[in-house]
Amino acid sequence: MDPARFPQHIIARKRDGLPLTPGEIRSFVQGATDGSWADYQLSALLMAIFLRGMTQAETAALTEAMMRSGVVVDLSLVRRPKVDKHSSGGVGDKVSLHLAPMIAVCGAAVPMISGRGLGHTGGTLDKLESIAGFRVALSLAEYRAQVEKVGAALIGQTPELAPADKKLYALRDVTGTVESIPLICASILCKKLAEGIDALVLNVTYGRGAFMVEKARARELAGVMVDIGRAMGKPMRAVITAMDEPLGRSVGNGLEVAESIACLHGRGPADLMAVTFALGEHMLLLAGLAPTAEAAREKLEAGLASGAALAKFREIVVAQGGDARMVDDPSRLPAAQRRELLVSRAGGYVRDVDARAIALASLRLGAGRTRAEDRIDPAVGLARLVKIGERVPRGGVLAELHGNDAAALAEARVIADRAIVVGETPGTAAPLIDEVLG
Amino acid sequence: MDPARFPQHIIARKRDGLPLTPGEIRSFVQGATDGSWADYQLSALLMAIFLRGMTQAETAALTEAMMRSGVVVDLSLVRRPKVDKHSSGGVGDKVSLHLAPMIAVCGAAVPMISGRGLGHTGGTLDKLESIAGFRVALSLAEYRAQVEKVGAALIGQTPELAPADKKLYALRDVTGTVESIPLICASILCKKLAEGIDALVLNVTYGRGAFMVEKARARELAGVMVDIGRAMGKPMRAVITAMDEPLGRSVGNGLEVAESIACLHGRGPADLMAVTFALGEHMLLLAGLAPTAEAAREKLEAGLASGAALAKFREIVVAQGGDARMVDDPSRLPAAQRRELLVSRAGGYVRDVDARAIALASLRLGAGRTRAEDRIDPAVGLARLVKIGERVPRGGVLAELHGNDAAALAEARVIADRAIVVGETPGTAAPLIDEVLG
Repeated sequence: MDPARFPQHIIARKRDGLPLTPGEIRSFVQGATDGSWADYQLSALLMAIFLRGMTQAETAALTEAMMRSGVVVDLSLVRRPKVDKHSSGGVGDKVSLHLAPMIAVCGAAVPMISGRGLGHTGGTLDKLESIAGFRVALSLAEYRAQVEKVGAALIGQTPELAPADKKLYALRDVTGTVESIPLICASILCKKLAEGIDALVLNVTYGRGAFMVEKARARELAGVMVDIGRAMGKPMRAVITAMDEPLGRSVGNGLEVAESIACLHGRGPADLMAVTFALGEHMLLLAGLAPTAEAAREKLEAGLASGAALAKFREIVVAQGGDARMVDDPSRLPAAQRRELLVSRAGGYVRDVDARAIALASLRLGAGRTRAEDRIDPAVGLARLVKIGERVPRGGVLAELHGNDAAALAEARVIADRAIVVGETPGTAAPLIDEVLG
Repeated sequence: MDPARFPQHIIARKRDGLPLTPGEIRSFVQGATDGSWADYQLSALLMAIFLRGMTQAETAALTEAMMRSGVVVDLSLVRRPKVDKHSSGGVGDKVSLHLAPMIAVCGAAVPMISGRGLGHTGGTLDKLESIAGFRVALSLAEYRAQVEKVGAALIGQTPELAPADKKLYALRDVTGTVESIPLICASILCKKLAEGIDALVLNVTYGRGAFMVEKARARELAGVMVDIGRAMGKPMRAVITAMDEPLGRSVGNGLEVAESIACLHGRGPADLMAVTFALGEHMLLLAGLAPTAEAAREKLEAGLASGAALAKFREIVVAQGGDARMVDDPSRLPAAQRRELLVSRAGGYVRDVDARAIALASLRLGAGRTRAEDRIDPAVGLARLVKIGERVPRGGVLAELHGNDAAALAEARVIADRAIVVGETPGTAAPLIDEVLG
């Protein structure tokens, strides 16, 4: 090995604040993929990157090297424009479930590779698995075939895609190097760019319920990702949204599937639909399937009104082995043994619904994981959540708790009761859709 | 495990520039010792420490935790004051070999645990092993017994002493985290403090032939070490010396042993003896065995003049299984098959002797290691080196190369020829003894 390629030499350069060359970055990513760098060398460089940062050119080189660490899916046989969305995560964020079919019926293909929930945020794959039989682990061949035939597939990361990311993400999680903008950017984009997409819309969230609490950090991440995407020849747009209260009125896997189905019936909560339409408009614009945002909005609404989007969702579920009867009749989705109402002790206005606390209540009920190996309960969570600014009478419902364990329900009730604040004047939520970059 | 003790939590605190508590530092050191921290977590924290630094209190806690990661030798049965010296390394630095017996005959005990050479600097253990049969791997019981009986022992690190340092040093070497003052300080002091000493004199070197090239960094390290030692109740003094040209006139293991024996005969080179006396004076002062530097110097000179120091060195060699005939007749030390002279092409003055280049010439001849597993040749190196400022006639000897391989000799000659510069006016070496701290 050329001494200039020794891991310790490359680590020392970043440690000293020097930019790494594309070759050095490829050596690092290759080392993560084939084991030629030891884990302790990978983590030392991750920490140096965390503290010293990366230039845009370095971040682009890292993204590209990670993307090329595995298969880059070739969807050139799919003749429709291929567009995807990615959310940086939040509480009650089930947008992908109904947006994918909404976009597919407008003429785009949606090759969507999603993740699982960890910590307080939910994961699209976990939600989909509330539908009996739904297979998220398609092979790449099945995935390609479904994107071509159905126009959308919602699957999990396969071992062939960006294996360097899998390795580095696991290390970052246990070495305090998660919250680094270049590392987050490369981790998100390398997987999305490996899917075979033409364009990508990002939903970058900030606030109590998001990974990035501060709006400035979310904007920074969004800006870097849009720039990197553009540098790699992929049109991108980033929609920055507030995540202080949960998105929609349901939190919990099966409950969120039911809410997504309600959206497809045209009965989605206003905030959830606002984010859905904003993202969908930009997806259709980037895909060249609508000349203006208004035209895109009309197409999306038409797909809902005609029932085509709902039918497309059903088609995706059937294609991936899921029980379509649960789509036709969401009361067939997994149901908790106990439902309890949290009611307001006084009349007034909802001043606050703390998304992170609601997520913790849902986690306590069994809807999420605190460790990667935890099993989740698809039936539990919170539904009928009030929204900030709404009027509630004395005794009015603030939330409906769904649980399978009395002790967990009692604890979740205490947490939810603190999270929802009712006062004499309405609270003001941050503007939901804050800014669009790109 | 308390979540506050999760490695990633502790790593994140240092990453964010917060000082670690003594408990967090103990968790890290314990983790290095018992494997409860993964290597990649250790290296992530090492990098965070490298870039964020440590306060004096943190460095002291790290030193103490590393010292306590293994056995702290109890030499309380040795009634003489126990004093040691440590050098931060250099080229031709064989001071320990003759200084230990010089101090022992003045009434102190010298429990000296040394290292091996790696890279361009030599190691005391490698030099001692030039003496046939010399055992550096004594057990702690043998070591204690010899310190008590002979007054000095020169051994290698045992597995019982500061095992956390062994682990962390190996990781630092391959993760670009060697040159960190708190990490260097803790690594040096934890081992020295585990030896069972009462006081310690440090020789902190700077210049081309030292690990620290800049004087300011050497002073910083010296200051931190003196402060930490004091905080841990051990009197310390740091002598800062220049290491631009080699110390003495010989470089190479057996050749350096011969030069140390010459020192014990009162025939040591002036620069080498100046450093030897400076360190020895402070050792005797800290040990309470001399009231003033002048008195200490007189005691040291008396030990040389009477032959007592030489006899003590012979006694140490015998106690550790070495062939005393090599001490009595250094021509019995391992000899190279070829000796070649490097001579001056013109008359003039020595303007420069580049210590690092001379070390590389010696390394090329086989005197050192480029990897930990390399075997060294005890016979090879350079002798009769000129000193900066000396007058040399045309054809005068600049160095004598000792080698066992013609190709290596040819290369070493080229390197040495470039390293030694003769000009019309004398060069000026940096003041050898720069400053004393503590």
